[in-house]
Amino acid sequence: MKGVFIIADGLGGRPSDLAGKTCLEAARTPNLDELARRGAIGLIDPIRPGVRPGSDTAHLSLLGYDPYEVYTGRGVYECLGIGIDVEPGDVCFRANFATVEETPDGLKLLDRRAGRIESGQEALAQALTQIELSDGVKFAFKASTQHRGALRLRGEGLTRHVSENDPHKTGVVIPDAQPLSDDPGARRTAAAVNEFTRKSYEVLKDHPVNRERIAAGKPPANIVLLRGAADLPHLEPIAKVYKVRGAVIAGAALYRGVALACGMTRIDAPGATGGVDTDLVSKAKTAIEALNELDYVFIHVKGTDNKGHDQDAAGKMRFIERIDAELIGTLMEKLDWSETHLAFTGDHTTPIDYGDHTAEPVPILYVGPNVRTDATTEFGERAAGRGGLGRWSGRALPILFNYNNWAPKFGS
Amino acid sequence: MKGVFIIADGLGGRPSDLAGKTCLEAARTPNLDELARRGAIGLIDPIRPGVRPGSDTAHLSLLGYDPYEVYTGRGVYECLGIGIDVEPGDVCFRANFATVEETPDGLKLLDRRAGRIESGQEALAQALTQIELSDGVKFAFKASTQHRGALRLRGEGLTRHVSENDPHKTGVVIPDAQPLSDDPGARRTAAAVNEFTRKSYEVLKDHPVNRERIAAGKPPANIVLLRGAADLPHLEPIAKVYKVRGAVIAGAALYRGVALACGMTRIDAPGATGGVDTDLVSKAKTAIEALNELDYVFIHVKGTDNKGHDQDAAGKMRFIERIDAELIGTLMEKLDWSETHLAFTGDHTTPIDYGDHTAEPVPILYVGPNVRTDATTEFGERAAGRGGLGRWSGRALPILFNYNNWAPKFGS
Repeated sequence: MKGVFIIADGLGGRPSDLAGKTCLEAARTPNLDELARRGAIGLIDPIRPGVRPGSDTAHLSLLGYDPYEVYTGRGVYECLGIGIDVEPGDVCFRANFATVEETPDGLKLLDRRAGRIESGQEALAQALTQIELSDGVKFAFKASTQHRGALRLRGEGLTRHVSENDPHKTGVVIPDAQPLSDDPGARRTAAAVNEFTRKSYEVLKDHPVNRERIAAGKPPANIVLLRGAADLPHLEPIAKVYKVRGAVIAGAALYRGVALACGMTRIDAPGATGGVDTDLVSKAKTAIEALNELDYVFIHVKGTDNKGHDQDAAGKMRFIERIDAELIGTLMEKLDWSETHLAFTGDHTTPIDYGDHTAEPVPILYVGPNVRTDATTEFGERAAGRGGLGRWSGRALPILFNYNNWAPKFGS
Repeated sequence: MKGVFIIADGLGGRPSDLAGKTCLEAARTPNLDELARRGAIGLIDPIRPGVRPGSDTAHLSLLGYDPYEVYTGRGVYECLGIGIDVEPGDVCFRANFATVEETPDGLKLLDRRAGRIESGQEALAQALTQIELSDGVKFAFKASTQHRGALRLRGEGLTRHVSENDPHKTGVVIPDAQPLSDDPGARRTAAAVNEFTRKSYEVLKDHPVNRERIAAGKPPANIVLLRGAADLPHLEPIAKVYKVRGAVIAGAALYRGVALACGMTRIDAPGATGGVDTDLVSKAKTAIEALNELDYVFIHVKGTDNKGHDQDAAGKMRFIERIDAELIGTLMEKLDWSETHLAFTGDHTTPIDYGDHTAEPVPILYVGPNVRTDATTEFGERAAGRGGLGRWSGRALPILFNYNNWAPKFGS
């Protein structure tokens, strides 16, 4: 048996999205509707009813973990997702290139995203390798998309109990990261964070990339701010629990990182971007090919959430239509449906009017030979409220695995 | 946005209530039916499926707390609800005036409720203030409705781990409260309980109120029995978690107490009694006025549960019809529905044939601009089983808050 697990990020919507319909309800989705007809649908609370999910916590929960037990912060998944290896005891951060200017009071933040810098980040990251930190602390830094990156600190006794030095608003002086516990390790970690950020400014302020940016009237990427401190939680690997091997196909680093932390391998689909311009046919084809070797694939698409955050209802609806036509359409054509179970859902609701995550449950669809079909003939939020699967919280992937007879028995 | 959260206590019923229908199903409720049409309904297990709720535990769960984590006993909510301030470390009790007579074996219980005494309780409570307890223990006592009251003990090392001295049956000698742990504090607390009860008899037995009662052939309220020992749990205040301010409007002390412990303020509606004679229009009007200043109100009505305990099906049905016409009707007319979400539910089922709480899920209704409507057009137990919200456990208030975009994000 094979498994295909698909999360469309921020899939859920509200009636206010498009004149009484959610984007998903308004979208033309003949393939998802056909899968709903062949399978069964229901409502899933990504974490728990009324809990407004982050992307990381929602994914942990949908993949079968209790985020209240295992969540330590986002930085660790960002590091893993962009290819920084992480060991127990390391402390990881989300990083962003930002623009500051020197003032008598300190470094004042002018742009949190350095003008959403689009090129030269690799050269800036390369320059940062010359930084040396005190106290025996080692680091690894990588740039990812635009202004984003991630930092791993490694050293004795470091902890994630430190505050961030990203003030999240412009016009203020960059604060020092502070220890959040009395542990001497928290003081050492805060000192390393502050030292890295201070030295990043020294290294970047006159870097050729930034001299060019300034000459072109663009804000220089002259500092690295750090947030989301996290260490590696113990996540019992999927391969150990279920005895199956799978891979993640995701354009955005965070989701790759969560999947890697759960023990999946990473496969990069050509043209997958983590945005609305992603190549969805390529993702489907990459998944189908991967299933020749592996038991399951987890495909993540991000554009739905991006368009929700952008408050672009038409764009979100169109991207859902592309998911239906390109991703689902290709999979429907190429999968061997006699021996495959597929699940399709979102990790939370991102309504257009609010432009951020909300806690409503999201529709979920299971299809394959072992699914007890229901009477529903369309896929959407309100259809899912009438679906035969009812409503429950989290564990979407373990439920898919159960249809494939991969679930371990609890008790005897 | 504004929020209105309504609990009709003991709302749920069974088919045996009224010839195959529950009291709610049999009642004429055009306003609740109209709200079901405009919104969405479902079934909520107040605590967990199959868990038979107390009123206090059900309310904690519906308000967003896990009673298995935070519940310490009822006494603390009774104290708070009748206006006794409670600090961490205090031990609180439900109290009742009772009737005892002296026998060679001790004080024998004749009436647990002192004939449901209706007047003179304030004078009796005043007399009790002359009691002095050993060992530096201080107390506060207040009478509430009929024979009921609450006691707070304050002193070093007191604990809630003591048994009650209310034997719950007449004809037996009042037992001494016993320590329930080896902690010396438990011994001290039990000693204080026994001293207070013994001295209450000394103070009350010849009180003028009781001489009059005896002369009138009524049982004297000549002792105070204590049960429900509880200390103050840590409940993260709603204002801190959700950054919104709200108030409780409840005639019965317990519900005010739970809401106060969660950080709501208390507003008293003129004519609200905590019984079936309560003024429901006054509660609605008080809520609407309160919403000028506050973000949300929690309205509790108790009569449904009282009539369930009385095993009075017609009375419960009529009270539900009054809720519909007077409370819901007034709210429907006066609320600004473009910016308000409302939730209506019960805290448990109180079927007529059983006359006590049972564990069936109760119907719940959400209405407001962000609610994904369903196809239901009536409000009731079986209609809710077909509702678009499905079934889940607890957290009714956080779900209401999510519709108002007040929920904090867990993760990032």
